[in-house]
Parts: sequence; C-alpha cells; structure tokens
Amino acid sequence: MAAVNSHQWPVRVYYENTDAGGVVYHAQYLNFMERARTEWLRHLGFEHTTLLQEYNCVFVLHSMQIQFKKSAKLDDLLTISSEMTKTGHGSVEFLQTIQLNQQTLITAQVKLACVHALTFKPIPVPIAVKRIMENQVVESV
Amino acid sequence: MAAVNSHQWPVRVYYENTDAGGVVYHAQYLNFMERARTEWLRHLGFEHTTLLQEYNCVFVLHSMQIQFKKSAKLDDLLTISSEMTKTGHGSVEFLQTIQLNQQTLITAQVKLACVHALTFKPIPVPIAVKRIMENQVVESV
Amino acid sequence: MAAVNSHQWPVRVYYENTDAGGVVYHAQYLNFMERARTEWLRHLGFEHTTLLQEYNCVFVLHSMQIQFKKSAKLDDLLTISSEMTKTGHGSVEFLQTIQLNQQTLITAQVKLACVHALTFKPIPVPIAVKRIMENQVVESV
Amino acid sequence: MAAVNSHQWPVRVYYENTDAGGVVYHAQYLNFMERARTEWLRHLGFEHTTLLQEYNCVFVLHSMQIQFKKSAKLDDLLTISSEMTKTGHGSVEFLQTIQLNQQTLITAQVKLACVHALTFKPIPVPIAVKRIMENQVVESV
Repeated sequence: MAAVNSHQWPVRVYYENTDAGGVVYHAQYLNFMERARTEWLRHLGFEHTTLLQEYNCVFVLHSMQIQFKKSAKLDDLLTISSEMTKTGHGSVEFLQTIQLNQQTLITAQVKLACVHALTFKPIPVPIAVKRIMENQVVESV
Repeated sequence: MAAVNSHQWPVRVYYENTDAGGVVYHAQYLNFMERARTEWLRHLGFEHTTLLQEYNCVFVLHSMQIQFKKSAKLDDLLTISSEMTKTGHGSVEFLQTIQLNQQTLITAQVKLACVHALTFKPIPVPIAVKRIMENQVVESV
Repeated sequence: MAAVNSHQWPVRVYYENTDAGGVVYHAQYLNFMERARTEWLRHLGFEHTTLLQEYNCVFVLHSMQIQFKKSAKLDDLLTISSEMTKTGHGSVEFLQTIQLNQQTLITAQVKLACVHALTFKPIPVPIAVKRIMENQVVESV
Repeated sequence: MAAVNSHQWPVRVYYENTDAGGVVYHAQYLNFMERARTEWLRHLGFEHTTLLQEYNCVFVLHSMQIQFKKSAKLDDLLTISSEMTKTGHGSVEFLQTIQLNQQTLITAQVKLACVHALTFKPIPVPIAVKRIMENQVVESV
C-alpha cells in the first residue's frame, strides 16, 4: 500500500523503454522515477528551470539503492510513488516504488544532493523550497 | 561501397539500443549517426566543447531524410559512414549510411545549421572550422 | 492549425530528453512522435501487444523526412499531432507535428511498413486494423 | 587503482548521454556499466544472443547500489571497470566503477540474476558459463 503522504505519477511503457529481452530496459526505471520526482516538485510549485534561475540550484543524484523485483512490459501503465523520507541540510531522501496493478515491481531508496548549477559544489537546499517540502510531509500525515 | 572521402566509425549494438520488437529502436540510429559526426569532427581536430568555448558555436539538426531499409540487431557491429556533401555559409550537409557486413541498413541526408550556443540564432560556420572541413573533402578525393 | 482529423497527444520534456546544449536532444523527437502514434492506435482500439499476438504484425519505420525548426526545452509541455495521410496495402503514412503554445517546432512526414513480427518480411496491414484506420480518417473529415 | 582481475572498457560521452544540467544524465551510467559487462562476457567468449539461443538464458538486474561521486561531461573518455566479486547458483555479482583520468566518478555494487528468456523465472547460471567466469577470476589473481 502506498504511504499516505506519497505522490503518485502514472507512466506508460512505450517501445523506446523496452529492450530485446522483451521487457523494460533496467536503466529506464531511473528515468521513470526522475519524472515522478519532477512532477512531485512541480506539484509543490517548483520547476527545475525555476530552481535554476532563482536559486542556481540543481538536485543531482547522490546515491541509490534499487531492487528489481519484476519487469514491466510494453503498453503497461505503471504508477510511480515518491515519498520524501528525509530532508537534510543539503540533501533530500526518497523512497520510490514502481507498481503495476498494485504489484510492486521496483523499490528504490534515493538520495539527492543540492548543488550549484554552475560549479556543481554542494549548497544548502534553498529555504523556501525546503519549507514547502517539509510542510508537504507534515501536511500529509 | 563507401565513398573515398567518407569517414567510418564502428558502433556496437547493446541492449540499451534495442526494443521489444527484437531489433534496434529506430530513433537510436540517429544517435549512432550523431556519434559518427562527432568523431569526424574530432578527427578534424575539433571537439564540441572547443566549438562551444572558442566560437560559441553549436551544430544543430536542420533537417533529415532517412530511409530505414533493414534492422540492426543486438550484438551487431555496425559501420557508420559520414560524407560531407556540402558546406554552406551557415550549414553543413552530410550523406550518412549505417552498414552491417557491407550491407546498407540505413541511409540519411542530414543538414546541420550552425547556431549561437546561447541564443540559438543562426551564425556562420567559423572560418577555421569551415576551412578544415573543406580541405578534408578535397584532400580525400 | 491542426487538421480536423488529427490526433493530439501531450508530452512533457524531462531532463532525460535534454542534452548539454540545453535543449531537447534531436533524436528524442522521434520517440515523442512514436508515443503519439502509439496513443493514436490505442485510441482506435489497438495496442502493439494485440497487433503482435493477434496478427503477428509490427509497424516499423520505412522512411521519415523531418524538419527541425525550433528546439523544445526542459519542462516544456508539447503537443504532438498525428494525422494519417495515406493507407497503402502494406504501409501507412502520417504527417506529424510537435508544437509548443501553437508554435510548430518540428514537422515530419512518416511512412511505416507493416512487417511480420518474427521474419520482419512485409505483410499487408491487417484488414480489421486498416478498416478502422480508414473509417477514422473519413469520420473525422 | 583497479583490481588486478578487473575488466576495463572505454566509453566516450556523446550529446545523447548528457542533459540540460550540462553533465551526463544519471541513468546513462547504468547503460555504460551494462555495456562493460556485455564486453566482459564477450571477452569470455559469450554473446547475449548465444546465451539466449543456446541456454535460453538472460541475465537481468536483481539489485544495485550506486554512488554518484562526480559527474562526467560531454567528450569525456571514461573507463568502466568490472570486477566479478561472486558467482552464486543463479546469480553473479560485480563491483563496477566509472573513472576519468584515474579519478573515480561512480561506484556500483551490481547483482544479476539468471532467468529463462521466455518465462523470466530464475534458472541456474549455465555450467559452461559459470566455469569460464570462475576460471577468469582465479586466473587473474
């Protein structure tokens, strides 16, 4: 069951996402999860381009633990769940799952770091962004 | 037979390039051809990053006519041929083919425009670049 | 203006679709157009997997002419229009455009061939599919 | 320093691998690592298509832990190292790194499961494959 404060995003599987094994190419699941995090951000009122232009901030992957339990196939309509599990000074953590008809195909623990758009040096998560992210978490419990 | 003044570049097909149809996903051939044009440029002494930093110049696709004759498969070792057929004031044209064991799978007529890296407005092909490109053509005949 | 009988499909631009030039990587537009053709098929009642399982039929790219007029950017919400312009014995032709806020970024003439899923030999478009495709065209005029 | 029994594979970064952040799109590193594992297999005398045709065997991702330390950029020539750390009954484990000029950008612990090509059910790693994989490890120490 998805957590109460998780954000859901639908993703359809197209030919471009599959490989000659007949299923989704494994790295594509990372794309799907990134789309879902982007839509979660947009839902909070932020676009990547806004973060860039207003805060010189880009969220980059710090680390990821991913379990591939079952494969998705062509034409599947998947649900990507994103639940923020922690906000640090300069990082954000998520638990993400990819489901098909309530069955979990993929789970991932994802840590993102906030970096400066030009130097790629770590910077604090902008306060305005952090505040909204955290209210989001509290609000949904 | 490849033209005498054409540049050749090998490309191996991996799972990431294939789709559930069991063959290479069609849009991937454009990636392969872009790699070959990049290596042709590098062979002439230019990297994309040099063009960017020294000339604020990026080559972008203007138009393309592509014929898909036969599909490539997983593990195939392809040869991408790139022949510059025309240099204009602000553009460059290529004839590119993708071959497997001398058999042509794909042919494409490709026109690139030179644009400013920030504004994306058309600019002339930098003289130094154009001169080397054109010598290249003559030299190889 | 989109043709009356054209099918529309929205596509959001994510980081995965962009490149270091700051815009959408050119080959990704082909992915977007393939998604739109897939959704057009689904709208007619056919999925790729149905075509495969019931008719051993796969539609593959035969040829494409594509004009890149303007680039799409991160976060853009694009509209892909697909208009079937011709059904042949063993092929289907489309005019497709990619638009942002009514402005046309990309136009493409696309010809698909129907091939056998295992042999990749040309086969006729299945009658049931063709009939529905053609009614679709007439219906919408 | 790379382990003595690790396999090395060069990968060039092209526009297709980068994103609007100006660096390699994170999921592309998984593609690079898959290419390196494929070349390691080929080096041992096996191609994916052979495994499929002779053993009905496909290696699929079971799980992955990945640390993104530093980003790769357009035109970078990367080295992907693959060291097999364990062969189980039905799985194989790797330590993989991505380096640029001796500097480690990415490290990953990767576990692959051997599954039947049609059913995707777990099967033992084919004996002939396993034997060669294990000799490979011993041989290189």
